[in-house]
Amino acid sequence: MKNPSAAIIVIGNEILSGRTLDLNSQEIATTLIKLGINLIEIRTIADNQNMIVKTVQELSTNYSYIFTTGGIGPTHDDITAESIAIAFNLPYILNQQIYDILQNYYTQIGEKITPARKKMAYTPKSAKLLYNNVSLIPGFVTNNVFSLAGIPQVMKSMLTSAIPMLKTGKVIKSKSIKIIVRESQIAEPFKNLQRKYNNVDMGSYPFTENGIHGTTLLLRSTDYTTLNSAFEELNKICQKYIL
Amino acid sequence: MKNPSAAIIVIGNEILSGRTLDLNSQEIATTLIKLGINLIEIRTIADNQNMIVKTVQELSTNYSYIFTTGGIGPTHDDITAESIAIAFNLPYILNQQIYDILQNYYTQIGEKITPARKKMAYTPKSAKLLYNNVSLIPGFVTNNVFSLAGIPQVMKSMLTSAIPMLKTGKVIKSKSIKIIVRESQIAEPFKNLQRKYNNVDMGSYPFTENGIHGTTLLLRSTDYTTLNSAFEELNKICQKYIL
Repeated sequence: MKNPSAAIIVIGNEILSGRTLDLNSQEIATTLIKLGINLIEIRTIADNQNMIVKTVQELSTNYSYIFTTGGIGPTHDDITAESIAIAFNLPYILNQQIYDILQNYYTQIGEKITPARKKMAYTPKSAKLLYNNVSLIPGFVTNNVFSLAGIPQVMKSMLTSAIPMLKTGKVIKSKSIKIIVRESQIAEPFKNLQRKYNNVDMGSYPFTENGIHGTTLLLRSTDYTTLNSAFEELNKICQKYIL
Repeated sequence: MKNPSAAIIVIGNEILSGRTLDLNSQEIATTLIKLGINLIEIRTIADNQNMIVKTVQELSTNYSYIFTTGGIGPTHDDITAESIAIAFNLPYILNQQIYDILQNYYTQIGEKITPARKKMAYTPKSAKLLYNNVSLIPGFVTNNVFSLAGIPQVMKSMLTSAIPMLKTGKVIKSKSIKIIVRESQIAEPFKNLQRKYNNVDMGSYPFTENGIHGTTLLLRSTDYTTLNSAFEELNKICQKYIL
């Protein structure tokens, strides 16, 4: 059986302007890999309704799961929920569960639910909620699209709520070796090894540490027996290069 | 006149697996914004030829400039140059200038140009080169696609070489104010301000510092006079919230 697939849509002018470094994608990537869900692509787009609608429509048909980050909130630039409603041709309506949370909270602190606060209770119709333990407002799930906050701490908590809703796959295991050899020296035997083991994904990553140039060779596969054989063979190849 | 537009294609299994944090996109974003080039989207995709070809074809028609990062190198997983050649239906050939660099270097250190090393001299036909002062191998430009290395230090140096080749636009200036007020309290007047100044892009970013919740309000525009007026008005609005 094939592993479920996924894509991330980062909604955020602040990433595109360089103002903010996107840390959420790595957090989601690290979570998905442990669940055996294959992350196929990440798209970072502006807070623009047409762009969000188009991207959600395209990716939600191509992949098992979509994760959006950002654009959930009370201000006019928070347009994720409405855009996803449009993408799926669903009504954009007041979610009673979220409204109850708001009412509870603002009654407690003696403040009113202003229109901006009420906006946070709107989701696409029949969205499921993704509670979090950091902020008041939950994320939400619309069909196969999981909409998470942009603030990393809040995003992480919503992602934890999403995990039990996801089908898992066979976990890709990885094995790696670091050698003090430049990529160009190991490239030839490494290529031949890749040819021999075509169901092991082999990557090569150069690094420089304290002025020394080396290469990390990384093998990844869901076929653990083959992974082990390939890694054993790689070790033998690398021994030739150890002084 | 409209500003040039741009997109980034991050080519990297290591980003999608969560192994590596992508720092290059922020570096490119920060550079482009100073040049008045509007970064519209970022796509992170796997080291997969079909995916690279498809993405390059789609984005290079939509935007003035494309920047790719990663997949330049001697190993079998470095397939950026060949994929871009395919995307533009160009021959993938030995670049004599790069080959001369290699020959010079390896003669000096008394080593041979192996097939893997020779591979680094291949680019799409008539590609221009992007020299860098960190590593031996230059990046290259194919039509409107600038192919940069994945290692941040090398990428940065190649990007510097690319700058003189880019048409610039009117720089988007930004002004921001930080207030110790939650987003939901300022959302209503901020929305009205956005409605009044539709050529100023207004974003709201909540933050928590030392347990205090606040909001950064950010205004961005290429129309500096209007930006100043809008910011002046924003300051007046915010004064109501300063205790």
